[in-house]
Amino acid sequence: MSIGDVCHIPSPLARHNRGIFAAIVTPRNASNSVFTLEHSAADSRARAGVVHTAHGDIPTPVFMPVGTQGTVKAMEQRSLVELDARIILGNTYHLYLRPGTQVLTAMGGLHRMMGWQGALLTDSGGFQVFSLRELRTLREEGAEFRSHIDGSKHLFTPESVVDIQRAIGSDIFMVLDECTPWPAERSVAKTSMELTLRWAQRSRARHLEAPFMYGHHQAQFAIGQGSTYDDLRRECMDRLVDMDYEGYAIGGLSVGEPHQDMYRIVDVSTERMPRDKPRYLMGVGTPENILRCIALGVDMFDCVMPTRNARNGTIYTTRGRVNIKNAQYKFADEPLDDGLDNHASQNTSLAYLRHLFNAGEILGLMLATMQNVALYLWLARTARQRILEGTFTTWAEDTIQRLHAPRS
Amino acid sequence: MSIGDVCHIPSPLARHNRGIFAAIVTPRNASNSVFTLEHSAADSRARAGVVHTAHGDIPTPVFMPVGTQGTVKAMEQRSLVELDARIILGNTYHLYLRPGTQVLTAMGGLHRMMGWQGALLTDSGGFQVFSLRELRTLREEGAEFRSHIDGSKHLFTPESVVDIQRAIGSDIFMVLDECTPWPAERSVAKTSMELTLRWAQRSRARHLEAPFMYGHHQAQFAIGQGSTYDDLRRECMDRLVDMDYEGYAIGGLSVGEPHQDMYRIVDVSTERMPRDKPRYLMGVGTPENILRCIALGVDMFDCVMPTRNARNGTIYTTRGRVNIKNAQYKFADEPLDDGLDNHASQNTSLAYLRHLFNAGEILGLMLATMQNVALYLWLARTARQRILEGTFTTWAEDTIQRLHAPRS
Repeated sequence: MSIGDVCHIPSPLARHNRGIFAAIVTPRNASNSVFTLEHSAADSRARAGVVHTAHGDIPTPVFMPVGTQGTVKAMEQRSLVELDARIILGNTYHLYLRPGTQVLTAMGGLHRMMGWQGALLTDSGGFQVFSLRELRTLREEGAEFRSHIDGSKHLFTPESVVDIQRAIGSDIFMVLDECTPWPAERSVAKTSMELTLRWAQRSRARHLEAPFMYGHHQAQFAIGQGSTYDDLRRECMDRLVDMDYEGYAIGGLSVGEPHQDMYRIVDVSTERMPRDKPRYLMGVGTPENILRCIALGVDMFDCVMPTRNARNGTIYTTRGRVNIKNAQYKFADEPLDDGLDNHASQNTSLAYLRHLFNAGEILGLMLATMQNVALYLWLARTARQRILEGTFTTWAEDTIQRLHAPRS
Repeated sequence: MSIGDVCHIPSPLARHNRGIFAAIVTPRNASNSVFTLEHSAADSRARAGVVHTAHGDIPTPVFMPVGTQGTVKAMEQRSLVELDARIILGNTYHLYLRPGTQVLTAMGGLHRMMGWQGALLTDSGGFQVFSLRELRTLREEGAEFRSHIDGSKHLFTPESVVDIQRAIGSDIFMVLDECTPWPAERSVAKTSMELTLRWAQRSRARHLEAPFMYGHHQAQFAIGQGSTYDDLRRECMDRLVDMDYEGYAIGGLSVGEPHQDMYRIVDVSTERMPRDKPRYLMGVGTPENILRCIALGVDMFDCVMPTRNARNGTIYTTRGRVNIKNAQYKFADEPLDDGLDNHASQNTSLAYLRHLFNAGEILGLMLATMQNVALYLWLARTARQRILEGTFTTWAEDTIQRLHAPRS
């Protein structure tokens, strides 16, 4: 089945989901190209572009809210639409365990199951399996692990991870990689990288031979590893580029290494990533991390930080950081963030949100999450606009100072 | 300050809350009347009417979602608007402890603090203090209790409870009563009722002498007690009616007594309640309870059941009850409730909701809450329509059977 073909799945819910498949016929520049580079900054490597998917175009730089188990925690899908989120993440590891591929297939994929008409990217599960530590064993064939839910034994292979993502129906899926622990001896990092590369070959082969399950195009991104060794990172990326993926990601960062190592590895990696393909930095990070890595040429970001911090009461605003449980907000009769143009930011007072957190109310988690997701989406959207206008660098420095300071 | 006067509180948030005070100038039929009786059924005592408040007219019968701590748990205020909820509850006991009257006053009242432009009714705290058991002592002056949060000691008097509700700014507030435990000896029930009546006198006096704090009219409802003794219930209601409240409630039910006792006491009570004033049955109940009590002449209901059950995974639908965690819904690719015309009911599949509950996701609680609140609002709204059309009784019997059966 070729790009642009549509396979309608008739079902009782179908009438409620008109439009889910509407974006499938989005024209492409070329059969294998999912990216249009619009503009490169003059004073940094920052760039503005568009990632094309079967579920809509995604202006970049972009922040992708994390919806691990088929929901961005504490948010309705329509709130994501309201905030103009164009793409969200799902996680192959979690979705494989729950609800499982049988259910996902019966529902016609995750887009339809969760009623999400935007784009979906799925992480491969490599990072989660890596996080299981005692519960997993890596071997040539794949990664064997025990479920964190019930201890049951499972095997992820490069091929099975492609197939799970086919069942999920994500627009962009990631290869199974080994996320090298940090710190790692050079020899360990090299061995790990070689495994990642062999798995990447198998992943690509499986992807190119298997038909799309729901008829819409699915792109596949490779993941560069190599720990904090510049030469390994270069070699890994070069060899992945030879495999001709639709996009490339930088993995194995934000695992404990100093920020300066992270920035250097991003720098080394983006230098080797093709100009005409999207570049994705996985699992990063703070607003500062994101802006600094945009300057190094990254297009796509995801991180649990805005959603997880929201649930802990740490709120990002355009005027600085807030710990909403702090007594100073008891009488704070002002909008959460008048610099953001959405319902939650404009119509929630700091005092009300503090009360909700103090009283342990779910609505507190909901409103804080909307604020933080709105802030991160605004951050990437404004970065893009500044890149196009040629004012990114000064704006970014100012924004980093402002966002990381206590709220003014 | 008379009905219809408006006192605008200038503040930084005011511009975001345009319209909060818009309904204040709603015309009234008479200075002290908050109710218009529109229609009485021919074959039951069911009635359709309108409760007039400073924050809008409320067609009755009405179900009032419970927002104990200034939020209907797991719901945004705009979702309540979407479901056409016209009035919600707050709780004096909880709001007094958190955020406290100082904060509420500084915010210009709870409507403004929570951004709720509909009507608010506040329970007096009598039921909560009653529930504290070991933590409270009743005496003539009032109810002394220890906070369930930090053990601090507090005194509620009939007068202080009026003042707390003035600070909350509710449109309808309830007098402090003693919720007589069940079962109670006749002499105990009689002594308790007499205390409730003396407190009611003091509450009314305080209400009539104290100015409204934010300029909008606030009505006060009395609460009938008398346990399951018909004569005490009649006497209590008669003596409350003599005090000329804006509305009357039936309290002390749904505390463990058999359903048939509850129906009999409601029957006895509504017989003595004025035709031209709203009748409110506190804390009741299942869809069946509500429809049966509408038939007995009740206009207003509140209950935590739809919201609390939602969070436990018990869902009411127009096609029957659902335990969403049940394996039978694993592949259930159909809308939660196609009989209800709202986003959550129409666009959430049973399988997706089951997955969210299984995975412990907050969105599950949010969607289930929306469904159950939508169902209860639909129930009261449809009851009203059937009363006006003269088809209430047969519809009610059919609906009771349908709603309480497993989902078809």
